[in-house]
Amino acid sequence: MNFQCNQQDLSYGIQHVQKAVSNRNTLPVLLGIKLVAFEDTLTLSATDLELAVECTVKATVQENGEIVLPAKYFVDMIHNLPHGPVVFQLDPDSLQVKISSGKAEFNLHGISPDEFPTLTYIEEEEYSTIPSEVLSKSIKQTSFALSNDESRPVFTGLLLEWTEERFRVVATDGYRLAVKSHSFNFRPDFPDVVVPGKTMTELLRILSNRKEEQIKMAIQGNQIYFRLSDTLVVSRLIEGSYPQYQQIIPQEKSITVELDRENFLHTLERVGVITKEGPNVIKLHITDKEKLVITANSPEIGDTYDEMTISPQKKDMEIAFNSKYLKDALKAIPTEKIHFSFIEELKPATMTPVGEEDYIYVVLPIRLAK
Amino acid sequence: MNFQCNQQDLSYGIQHVQKAVSNRNTLPVLLGIKLVAFEDTLTLSATDLELAVECTVKATVQENGEIVLPAKYFVDMIHNLPHGPVVFQLDPDSLQVKISSGKAEFNLHGISPDEFPTLTYIEEEEYSTIPSEVLSKSIKQTSFALSNDESRPVFTGLLLEWTEERFRVVATDGYRLAVKSHSFNFRPDFPDVVVPGKTMTELLRILSNRKEEQIKMAIQGNQIYFRLSDTLVVSRLIEGSYPQYQQIIPQEKSITVELDRENFLHTLERVGVITKEGPNVIKLHITDKEKLVITANSPEIGDTYDEMTISPQKKDMEIAFNSKYLKDALKAIPTEKIHFSFIEELKPATMTPVGEEDYIYVVLPIRLAK
Repeated sequence: MNFQCNQQDLSYGIQHVQKAVSNRNTLPVLLGIKLVAFEDTLTLSATDLELAVECTVKATVQENGEIVLPAKYFVDMIHNLPHGPVVFQLDPDSLQVKISSGKAEFNLHGISPDEFPTLTYIEEEEYSTIPSEVLSKSIKQTSFALSNDESRPVFTGLLLEWTEERFRVVATDGYRLAVKSHSFNFRPDFPDVVVPGKTMTELLRILSNRKEEQIKMAIQGNQIYFRLSDTLVVSRLIEGSYPQYQQIIPQEKSITVELDRENFLHTLERVGVITKEGPNVIKLHITDKEKLVITANSPEIGDTYDEMTISPQKKDMEIAFNSKYLKDALKAIPTEKIHFSFIEELKPATMTPVGEEDYIYVVLPIRLAK
Repeated sequence: MNFQCNQQDLSYGIQHVQKAVSNRNTLPVLLGIKLVAFEDTLTLSATDLELAVECTVKATVQENGEIVLPAKYFVDMIHNLPHGPVVFQLDPDSLQVKISSGKAEFNLHGISPDEFPTLTYIEEEEYSTIPSEVLSKSIKQTSFALSNDESRPVFTGLLLEWTEERFRVVATDGYRLAVKSHSFNFRPDFPDVVVPGKTMTELLRILSNRKEEQIKMAIQGNQIYFRLSDTLVVSRLIEGSYPQYQQIIPQEKSITVELDRENFLHTLERVGVITKEGPNVIKLHITDKEKLVITANSPEIGDTYDEMTISPQKKDMEIAFNSKYLKDALKAIPTEKIHFSFIEELKPATMTPVGEEDYIYVVLPIRLAK
């Protein structure tokens, strides 16, 4: 292997694959980034066995070849090099790679690529095209509601659901639920799948750093494929049946208030100061006096009070929430106003963006000790 | 106590005193910020018994008074309030403080100020004036060389030394030494003192956020006082005798190379990638071929090489350093070029900024296993 690649292109490639490098100390080869020099390209790839990312950049290749380099050192090394050409030369006997840029020279011990897991590429016709905006928006507006609790795997993933003329992305941790829908002109023959949260947030990160209008997507066996012009993201799917989330979405509501999203968020942040180290409980009191009263209290610290003006309501209601669950959704909703709807004190409430009816957030209230 | 103060002024005051709040859980009152409303001012203060900071801002006071509020909640509360007036009302029986801004209202349990340590103020004539630039520069260029090892207290402080027509600030951790000198037209009648590193870096932080040309300084008993227009910083001094640092500064040198500071720093960062998780050793090789060769190696990872052009040298030398010790100094030196001087392989080397002869950095080399 002998090739030359620009520092900027190397950085770009690294930035794409870096997060897929395993951070557990199982197989040494998984702590590395695989480099494949072939014809006029360099392909960098990394995987933690759940998520695999590969990114191809242009290179001037004298001799094709491949090697795995320890990510921890390779990444820092490239970031510390000045812009300009970087030359890689592999000694196939010692697996040592000589990397040079100007007068600077590095000799890194490489790892044999034989043990590096290989990706199964799939046929072009398996892919369907989806606007990347649709995916980005869906991930942004739902993924915060995921669980990190590995004991209930399906809650750690996003459900991608393909129904009649609709594509839906769903996240829940059992206490709250976020659903984003999109209308589509086509329906690919995809099964409903649950994709690990890490895969989706990594995909979001990659998409946010580039302008790419369309992204190709395929599902095969236990894997999902996302293909961008120069990057391939492949992830295993989460097995197990997803909860019947439709049943959780309230079909009725007795009170709906319209609130300025940013104002409500700031008020929650202010009022919540006092319970930030505790259970984070805030109480909402909807009054017939055109006021939404927000309060919190902590026996040791004190109590807080604030209010917002709302349209006249026919009845009073007092309901309590984990304020984090409200703030997370308010941060993810992009519209200026939201509708916050309630049935009664202990039943799930819903939040929707005003003007974007394709999103719903359901949140369970907290039962207060009387 | 009953007063009104602007949110911006409260934030300004908090920003000054906040870092002096104790972060150990000893005396509850030390986890608080003391508020004293008196005439047309509000004075905020905090102390961890080593460092005390107080800052005075303007306020509209209806009734004088004082209270201590838990910093953790008070600080967040003020930062989350919108700009504008904030009203404080103390209920002297319950020690509850009602804080209101617009419709937002907080009731915080206060702590009696009786247990809050009182500062001893000193007479105006005890103070001498020093340009704040002199102090800032001295702290920036020396404090990185301090030790954090509490078992050798004097190494955790900066020595302030008043000699004939000179003010010197010195830091050492036993492996390296930084000395910054300033010429002065006056010599206040100050003893040499060792001031805790935390005090000095906190003073630097306060100075860097404001434009204040002169600062008043006094030493009395076991304490040092720094007085700004609206802020007073008081700190205990560190007892114990400071090492005879003059003896460590080499009086001879056999080789001096002139280097571009930034280039040298980047080269060290690049070459050091490979030993970043180990002992951080880099080797310098000064050759008669007008080259400074910089290398590092790690048996597990590989090795690195770089070189810089230097003026012709009469002899060769190989010397090794902890690269962090070189990088710290290069980051603190403000000039474009530096002089790096050596005696021999195992003797201390010195670094000085070219064009600023009032600064010297001494660093011990590392003995390599042969």
